[in-house]
Amino acid sequence: MDPRIREHAQTIVDHSVELQAGDDVVIQLPPEAEDLAVALYELCGEREASPTWLAGSDRAARGFLLAAGESYETPENRLAFYEETDVFILARGGPSVTEQSDVPPANTAAYKRATRPLQEERLSKRWCLTQVPTTGHAQLAEMSTEAYENFVYDAISLDWEAQRKFQETMVTLLDGADEVRIVAGDETDLTLSVAGNTTLNDYGEKNLPGGEVFTAPVVDSVEGEVVFDIPLMRQGRKIEDVWLSFAGGEVVDHRAGRNESLLTEILNTDDGARRLGELGIGMNRAIDQFTANMLFDEKMGDTVHLAVGAAYPETVGDDNTQNESAEHVDMIIDMSENSRIELDGDVVQRDGTFVFENGFA
Amino acid sequence: MDPRIREHAQTIVDHSVELQAGDDVVIQLPPEAEDLAVALYELCGEREASPTWLAGSDRAARGFLLAAGESYETPENRLAFYEETDVFILARGGPSVTEQSDVPPANTAAYKRATRPLQEERLSKRWCLTQVPTTGHAQLAEMSTEAYENFVYDAISLDWEAQRKFQETMVTLLDGADEVRIVAGDETDLTLSVAGNTTLNDYGEKNLPGGEVFTAPVVDSVEGEVVFDIPLMRQGRKIEDVWLSFAGGEVVDHRAGRNESLLTEILNTDDGARRLGELGIGMNRAIDQFTANMLFDEKMGDTVHLAVGAAYPETVGDDNTQNESAEHVDMIIDMSENSRIELDGDVVQRDGTFVFENGFA
Repeated sequence: MDPRIREHAQTIVDHSVELQAGDDVVIQLPPEAEDLAVALYELCGEREASPTWLAGSDRAARGFLLAAGESYETPENRLAFYEETDVFILARGGPSVTEQSDVPPANTAAYKRATRPLQEERLSKRWCLTQVPTTGHAQLAEMSTEAYENFVYDAISLDWEAQRKFQETMVTLLDGADEVRIVAGDETDLTLSVAGNTTLNDYGEKNLPGGEVFTAPVVDSVEGEVVFDIPLMRQGRKIEDVWLSFAGGEVVDHRAGRNESLLTEILNTDDGARRLGELGIGMNRAIDQFTANMLFDEKMGDTVHLAVGAAYPETVGDDNTQNESAEHVDMIIDMSENSRIELDGDVVQRDGTFVFENGFA
Repeated sequence: MDPRIREHAQTIVDHSVELQAGDDVVIQLPPEAEDLAVALYELCGEREASPTWLAGSDRAARGFLLAAGESYETPENRLAFYEETDVFILARGGPSVTEQSDVPPANTAAYKRATRPLQEERLSKRWCLTQVPTTGHAQLAEMSTEAYENFVYDAISLDWEAQRKFQETMVTLLDGADEVRIVAGDETDLTLSVAGNTTLNDYGEKNLPGGEVFTAPVVDSVEGEVVFDIPLMRQGRKIEDVWLSFAGGEVVDHRAGRNESLLTEILNTDDGARRLGELGIGMNRAIDQFTANMLFDEKMGDTVHLAVGAAYPETVGDDNTQNESAEHVDMIIDMSENSRIELDGDVVQRDGTFVFENGFA
């Protein structure tokens, strides 16, 4: 087995979910990821934890969702299972990412509603979402499988304690600021307030790779225009060159260079889908290219992302409003050139270099 | 996908477990069996049942058991899961059958003890054990994978209603008899009583393939000598040419042409392991060769099998003693030539042909 697979398992177990003796663990991996399952089972054995591998098969899910239509009940056996589970380890991967592309969205949405109690149960426990570098995502990234493996293992094998400290500096700056201004290229100039909200440091725990700091904009504070340079995937399709114009916190105009109707559909989901729920700063410089996979893209070094839709409750201060929506769609701005982030008028990042790094002055 | 896989799934769902709307289903398949998972998920969708695929990986199990040693607790999350599950579908298969050959037997035994509540939960529900024709079992059978696929699909796609009726005739004969005598070749001449016990008809429900009728010998009634022509697998090793001598129901002498020490180990497990727990008559003539897999071998047409060890409680009459043991080891006699089964002195099978079949007279 590739030795990086055992290192991956070790990082998940020791860093991301902090496995304890007696933990009951659900491991949701695609059938292709048997090597990672083996490595995780070995570690569970060593640590006196009890693992169960749920096979995540997009082909099986497609068969089920196509046949079942729009009517589902919450599976009671899974709910009982999840209630008694301490740790969830999930990985994306598989031979193809488009296996569910012919499932009617209404079927998927109905199934998601029925299984929301399972999601809520999982989110209330220790959990980690990670990636196995299989051919489907390599193809999505327009990379060879071997190059994609290198990319994935580089991104997840950072020195996470050093990364935590590096990111903590940015957390402190953001938490001390009221107004954020993002300027990039000729078209992006956006201001928003984060006053009273809380910035979180993602250093590889619930997401592996981690590598971002994120908070919630004050809902009505967003003003200006923004271009998202990096494509956005929606139901297997790319939305490119998104442009949004904000006034009073709301999207008042929008365009996309490709698949604009999908963008319109997102924004029309509900009121919250026209407002921002997240401001994130990508700080994982091992992620140096777009791979059409938000687990990686949003952590890319020298990027900022904004999400329309629901805010994470942990990021919203008690006196502020939490944006609510059925959507949470991240969109990414390239900050590597001709750009800056200002906090209360002070530049804290210029052309991808932070104020606390060599080379800023 | 091979169309026989969807037929296999249909037989499991409609015949073996009689899937109902609202059933919560656990599907335990090896990672290689994704096609069967897809077919079962499709049918669950159609029938408004909820499937969950547990990946059965011998490599992962090995890693866990090697690392964990001899100490296990019952996994509470799996127990809660199984308690709320209505139907279990399990399949053997995988790229190799010897992946767990270097796990210390004490580890496996300790794990089995800890997970016995899971087994009991499963056995109290609707369940089916079947086979996916993967390379590991093809190699074990000394067959090409394609020939093995043909063999498996032939054995499981009988007309099960016709098979039920065919076997029912034998059930009636056995249930009406007191003494059974089995004569084969020059060395096998065994008598035993089945008076007061019950014969069951296995036509593809809990085992797919099915194809046997079976009951329990009266514990102290077994007398005579028997040669088992067909090898017996134990921990991946073949025990060949087993010879047992019975007096007063007990094995009083034994030999094997190969791996005799494994046979001795079985018989010395406990008192019940030296007595018979089962008499079975194989009646599935699509199974026409030994494949070193008891799921098939014990149903082979023109065979009789005897098991040392535990009796199935459903086969033991209220006034008879149920043989108890930690073991249940089936051994098979070839009845196709120079052989007969007598019930109370009447020949009911000669050289593999039953009294109720053409060609007997």
